[in-house]
Amino acid sequence: MENKTMTAQTTTVMTAAEFLEQWQGHRRLTRKTIEAFPEKEFFNFSIGGMRPFSELVNEMMEMCGPGIYGIVTNEWKTFGGQAKSTTKEEVLKQWDEITRQINDLWEQIPEGRFQEVQMAFGQYENPGFKTILYFIDNEIHHRGQAFVYLRALGIQPPMFWDRS
Amino acid sequence: MENKTMTAQTTTVMTAAEFLEQWQGHRRLTRKTIEAFPEKEFFNFSIGGMRPFSELVNEMMEMCGPGIYGIVTNEWKTFGGQAKSTTKEEVLKQWDEITRQINDLWEQIPEGRFQEVQMAFGQYENPGFKTILYFIDNEIHHRGQAFVYLRALGIQPPMFWDRS
Repeated sequence: MENKTMTAQTTTVMTAAEFLEQWQGHRRLTRKTIEAFPEKEFFNFSIGGMRPFSELVNEMMEMCGPGIYGIVTNEWKTFGGQAKSTTKEEVLKQWDEITRQINDLWEQIPEGRFQEVQMAFGQYENPGFKTILYFIDNEIHHRGQAFVYLRALGIQPPMFWDRS
Repeated sequence: MENKTMTAQTTTVMTAAEFLEQWQGHRRLTRKTIEAFPEKEFFNFSIGGMRPFSELVNEMMEMCGPGIYGIVTNEWKTFGGQAKSTTKEEVLKQWDEITRQINDLWEQIPEGRFQEVQMAFGQYENPGFKTILYFIDNEIHHRGQAFVYLRALGIQPPMFWDRS
């Protein structure tokens, strides 16, 4: 055991810039996972009555696009209900647009917002950092499921650790 | 748009105590996921040539047990190679022991360690917060895969949002 001062439980874990990079690294991996699917299976393939990956990706986009806007403005647009893309090309375009929105809006997050409690989408009461963690965790969770779909299709998924 | 000061990109996102709760919340959900598996399928069931959930859980334990010890002490024990539990009961006992270790060792994390670069397990060079995020993300990823296994077995997984 090293002889050092211990961390106060109120100390900072990561900065806003590092948190953004954590999110965008996962988004890059999810983008590669979308690309790995054949067009048809992206929209149709599923296991055990679950949603196809296209539906899971649509959920991520409906959560993260209006979500980052809500974090910044405290105005929460409807979760879901937007027109869905019907080709992988359209989905990837929409994905990249949200990636840009997140980068642009990130710098406008008001001071104190990470620790401030908001009612996300009018129903989920959490401090900002927890709402964003939920977006990221939900994406990791559903992308993990897509890895099983790919394996069942005989396709090698991208490397989990590669966030480039 | 509210008229507020914007967040500095060096501002804190969450505290050490909140980070621990994020980790332990996921560990509680993973524990419920282990419990949801029938004994036999926990050790044998898989899809697409992937590892059964018991192997994925074993990876989590080999990563997180020695991992939290490494974060605190900067001594990295071998990743893997320990004797594996062969019943769900043993696995859950081992799981709970690691949960306790994480709670106990968390308070001993040296000041500055979250931002300090370490060579985790002698090969993964990252600041402490990123090493711990990797442990958590890897768990979410593999647990998501276990949810597909459960669905394929006709078993309803626990609720993803419930971390109680």
